[in-house]
Amino acid sequence: METDKKKNQYGTLYCVSVGPGDPELLTLKAVRVIKECEVAAFAVLPGGSDRKNGERIAEMPGRGSLTTAGKGSDPESKVTAADKIRPERGTDQERIRALRESCLAYRIAVRAVPELKEKEALCLRMPMTKDEEILERSHRTAADAIAVKLREGKNVAWLTLGDVTVYATSMYAAARVREMGYRTEIVSGVTSFCAAAACLGETLVSGDEELHIIPASYGVTHALEYPGVRVFMKAGRTIRTLGEELQKDGLSVKGVERCGLDGERIFQSAGEIDETAGYYTILIAREKRQQES
Amino acid sequence: METDKKKNQYGTLYCVSVGPGDPELLTLKAVRVIKECEVAAFAVLPGGSDRKNGERIAEMPGRGSLTTAGKGSDPESKVTAADKIRPERGTDQERIRALRESCLAYRIAVRAVPELKEKEALCLRMPMTKDEEILERSHRTAADAIAVKLREGKNVAWLTLGDVTVYATSMYAAARVREMGYRTEIVSGVTSFCAAAACLGETLVSGDEELHIIPASYGVTHALEYPGVRVFMKAGRTIRTLGEELQKDGLSVKGVERCGLDGERIFQSAGEIDETAGYYTILIAREKRQQES
Repeated sequence: METDKKKNQYGTLYCVSVGPGDPELLTLKAVRVIKECEVAAFAVLPGGSDRKNGERIAEMPGRGSLTTAGKGSDPESKVTAADKIRPERGTDQERIRALRESCLAYRIAVRAVPELKEKEALCLRMPMTKDEEILERSHRTAADAIAVKLREGKNVAWLTLGDVTVYATSMYAAARVREMGYRTEIVSGVTSFCAAAACLGETLVSGDEELHIIPASYGVTHALEYPGVRVFMKAGRTIRTLGEELQKDGLSVKGVERCGLDGERIFQSAGEIDETAGYYTILIAREKRQQES
Repeated sequence: METDKKKNQYGTLYCVSVGPGDPELLTLKAVRVIKECEVAAFAVLPGGSDRKNGERIAEMPGRGSLTTAGKGSDPESKVTAADKIRPERGTDQERIRALRESCLAYRIAVRAVPELKEKEALCLRMPMTKDEEILERSHRTAADAIAVKLREGKNVAWLTLGDVTVYATSMYAAARVREMGYRTEIVSGVTSFCAAAACLGETLVSGDEELHIIPASYGVTHALEYPGVRVFMKAGRTIRTLGEELQKDGLSVKGVERCGLDGERIFQSAGEIDETAGYYTILIAREKRQQES
């Protein structure tokens, strides 16, 4: 559709991993790429709050340096303008800041790269749901919004928690952007499970141990039988009972909540995990024999 | 044994992850810690060559700013001096440089932190073997050599490829250093398997997919049945037949050799993997259905 010459003038989408929480765990490359990009993109929940961090942010208008895409927009219309959103209180600038601040990946990255504050911001509404139709629509809308910036010749850095290749929803939209013919690049980062092991001061796997990473919100039936070390992510409210079940099976169970973030907590056994442990908790279960050797 | 007051004057051992190969994938924290430490430690093979990179380096004396520990030294004697090694050719300085350059983690880190060249170097001889007695002795000797530096009040940065918590032999010696009562800290990094996925431009796992990391040199029997995505590390010379076997089972098989290093190669299918693919090759196998969805 587009000529090669035109495409060479287009920007690149960088999927940038910002690591698990500590701003010092951004890589040199992440810092450089963020500085060099004209636009910084972030995922926010349709209501304007961050993904599962429980904070609720006022809706904000898409004026100023901020564009939003997702809620209420027509997926076919190559979203360029802000969608229909209601200003609620405060100045535009305040609301822009509030929405941007609602994104955890932004809050981490801006501590390592203060220049982020001055970048054009693109807030992408990504709902937390397993409804494939809704997800499909949000990925398409996000990809379209990014494409608008790329066609303007701007490079876009999409900031993502942890490592982008491990359970990041941004990769669906990025794949679509690539299918549309734009250049995309992944910037690797530190995963939450490696950081959790570091936080516990322990090796994650060694020697002949296998490592199994389980997205626990989808069920853990098989996982209870895997040998070696099992890491459970995204267990949510079931994490306490999961930890107890694993411990009953004779495993050593440890956990880290909000690794490297404010409110970080370390659980040295399943019994220490309380009802308030949430989405950002990583559970590490291993056979006791292996740990003690 | 030591008083708390004394211990407070001791240095800290930092186990520093330098990532998979690209010097830009060092974290900000890794760079800061390396700069701040007085001593930089590296693992080298007893013969003086790097771990499995096929290069053979002349033995060198332990004079100048370099200390070696491991070969021929008495594990009980708190190795402080260089062990019995034969100077072969060139000046001390040349041999020191050659031994240090034989360590891949050093070669990566020095490109991000040129100050490394001026640091006191501690080369730790870590044999590639599964013989537990030899391993045990090398870990003890390395820990003792590090402890000498810590008691001098020096901070030590032990540079390790990838992420320190994932199959790094340095963690055995570090655990011993901690048991001896010294402070140790882990600095997280990018794992080779995340970087390999980034190199392929693909997500590693998404949605409900499980991720299984298999140290293939210990056998892969169970691994052939795991659902989701399987990553095989350290397969060595068996990697080609392993890839073919997985592909015959209907899996999509891709690989990356020396990700981010000179001589990086990408294999888009098992058939592309040739006889020369070696130790630093990561194999990623996934069910085709999941990849195509």
